[in-house]
Amino acid sequence: MPMTPRVVSEIPTPALVLDAAALDRNIARMAAFFADGSCRLRPHVKAHKTPEIARRQLAAGSCAGLTCATVGEAESVAELCDDLLIANELIGADKCERAARLAVTLRDRAGERARVTVAVDSVEGLRALSAAAGVAGVTMGVLVDVNVGQNRCGVAPGDETLQLARQVAAYPRVVLRGVMGYEGHVQPIRARAEREAATRAAMSRLIESVDALRAGGLPCEIVSAGGTGTFDISGRIAGVTEIQAGSYALMDTDYREVGVPFDQAFWVLGTVVSVPTPDRCVVDAGHKSMTRDHGMPSVADIPGARVTALNDEHAVIGLSSSSVTPRLGDRVRLVPSHTDPTINLHDDFYVLDGDRVIDVWPIARGYRPLVRRV
Amino acid sequence: MPMTPRVVSEIPTPALVLDAAALDRNIARMAAFFADGSCRLRPHVKAHKTPEIARRQLAAGSCAGLTCATVGEAESVAELCDDLLIANELIGADKCERAARLAVTLRDRAGERARVTVAVDSVEGLRALSAAAGVAGVTMGVLVDVNVGQNRCGVAPGDETLQLARQVAAYPRVVLRGVMGYEGHVQPIRARAEREAATRAAMSRLIESVDALRAGGLPCEIVSAGGTGTFDISGRIAGVTEIQAGSYALMDTDYREVGVPFDQAFWVLGTVVSVPTPDRCVVDAGHKSMTRDHGMPSVADIPGARVTALNDEHAVIGLSSSSVTPRLGDRVRLVPSHTDPTINLHDDFYVLDGDRVIDVWPIARGYRPLVRRV
Repeated sequence: MPMTPRVVSEIPTPALVLDAAALDRNIARMAAFFADGSCRLRPHVKAHKTPEIARRQLAAGSCAGLTCATVGEAESVAELCDDLLIANELIGADKCERAARLAVTLRDRAGERARVTVAVDSVEGLRALSAAAGVAGVTMGVLVDVNVGQNRCGVAPGDETLQLARQVAAYPRVVLRGVMGYEGHVQPIRARAEREAATRAAMSRLIESVDALRAGGLPCEIVSAGGTGTFDISGRIAGVTEIQAGSYALMDTDYREVGVPFDQAFWVLGTVVSVPTPDRCVVDAGHKSMTRDHGMPSVADIPGARVTALNDEHAVIGLSSSSVTPRLGDRVRLVPSHTDPTINLHDDFYVLDGDRVIDVWPIARGYRPLVRRV
Repeated sequence: MPMTPRVVSEIPTPALVLDAAALDRNIARMAAFFADGSCRLRPHVKAHKTPEIARRQLAAGSCAGLTCATVGEAESVAELCDDLLIANELIGADKCERAARLAVTLRDRAGERARVTVAVDSVEGLRALSAAAGVAGVTMGVLVDVNVGQNRCGVAPGDETLQLARQVAAYPRVVLRGVMGYEGHVQPIRARAEREAATRAAMSRLIESVDALRAGGLPCEIVSAGGTGTFDISGRIAGVTEIQAGSYALMDTDYREVGVPFDQAFWVLGTVVSVPTPDRCVVDAGHKSMTRDHGMPSVADIPGARVTALNDEHAVIGLSSSSVTPRLGDRVRLVPSHTDPTINLHDDFYVLDGDRVIDVWPIARGYRPLVRRV
């Protein structure tokens, strides 16, 4: 195994690089927004899948716990936090069993206040979770997942939410903690006024469900919503108790265009491997190291340059509007268009302070929990 | 660690599944095309990154060796083959050193006929490769990369190719083996006549370069081109000695639409986790388990169903044209739109014979060589 690189030019490319100062600024800015405690932050691990980033988010305060998309993510951050939300339906005995074992780990460490909570939108899902919790001998939390307009998972707001919430009491070892409703369809809306109106419409469906639960005499301690595009809208709506934002910590071109107050904190680092003509160069970082599902990456280090094609292992960079012609071997940073799936392609973050590599942080990419490498 | 699943319903989702019989049919069909020896196949490892698939491709015959996109891929298949082509420019001392060490490994095992060959399109690249080969005390092969119209890497055909090829002799420990020219821009053209005309235009630029080398008294043992969309066009053009096809072994919706004679042999397996309405279900396989850079995946197991949205961890499946309503927990196979980046998201193939899991094959995803897991 080669030595850990000491400076940017020694990092094998393609690679993820991270500006720790920018990351910490973003984390502090978001924590400050929630500092008054009227609503709390539950940072979403799916955006970065990086335990060290989750640790810093928790250390900055204002957090109710962590949000995870998968059991593997929850397993990877379990040692950091006693209140984990898996904000997706777990269907399949294997996943319910893993979540229940995790709940046992947390309880044995932190006592009965520790909790693994899972989203449900079906009686079958509730039954399977209860069964797994029973086998493990642990109590698990449940949020009813409400469709607030994204039209993905979730039950209809109001009455249908109440009906499923009522079912929770019929199953042992599961306790109702509240509701969640992710306004994912709203996050990318560029115009602030339009985004705000769409968020309020989505949140009214969630609050309608909260009201239905309360009217039905059911508890609703957690009302979870929001993302990086709506944290300051949903996070100020009365009744919403937690925001699940994730991308704010690292940012991408898509959220930059949405216009949220965070700095770009990570990049894909590539090496110029070909300069066939003065108006074109090619970098060894393609869509196996950054996805293009939110469009092409942008070029951080060459003014006027733009990515014209992104293949498996190559970014073709057009230089016709640039006064700089890169040289073979130059390092170039590309700004990914989508944080979450880009980070999921990598095993490590190279953490930079200027040109120096000050640390390497493992990423729990894929679906297995992170195994610490020696 | 859980037991290896024995049947499809035990596989943790999302996961890659593979039909070994369909894979072997595709491999046999491609080997048969090249059986007369007028041109040979050098299967591209980048498509599958799976040593066991490379082993089967070599065992089927008609192969000149293997093609790799990265040094990591070459390291992962080095034990299988004595003639490896890295069909990309290697810029950076680290990559040249790793390639040179690989050349030493092959030579020590198989003698002087073994060869690691690397594409070059610059004198700087040639110099770095020669330097690394010198330090390792090994001879490495070189192909001059010719731009045949893709406008990515590569020197201009004809005279510029000859000029760079002449430089090879000026550097120790590198030997000119020929030229390569990948007509990547042609692969996705749907209409056969149009694809054939574009391929012939591209190959005329490559053959012009071969003629220039021969007229200049230089050797040109290897003339490498082609992909799954053009194997039967470029592979029948006089002077082309090798075809770099890869996707044919496993296939995707994109090449199915191109219309090549191979069967779909792999899928992303998901579980139905939500059925919110009769006209929609949600599967736990999103673009963190299959890319959408070539469009949405198609649905293999639900007639009339189509993927309407692909998020990080979810495929939303529209059922309005389907007479089947899946149930929670049902397994659903999705056909990826792009083989290479989809496989790169996974660590393993679950190999199926009908419903039975008959093997698990590790995938050398990412940029590190495959480490055998115990």
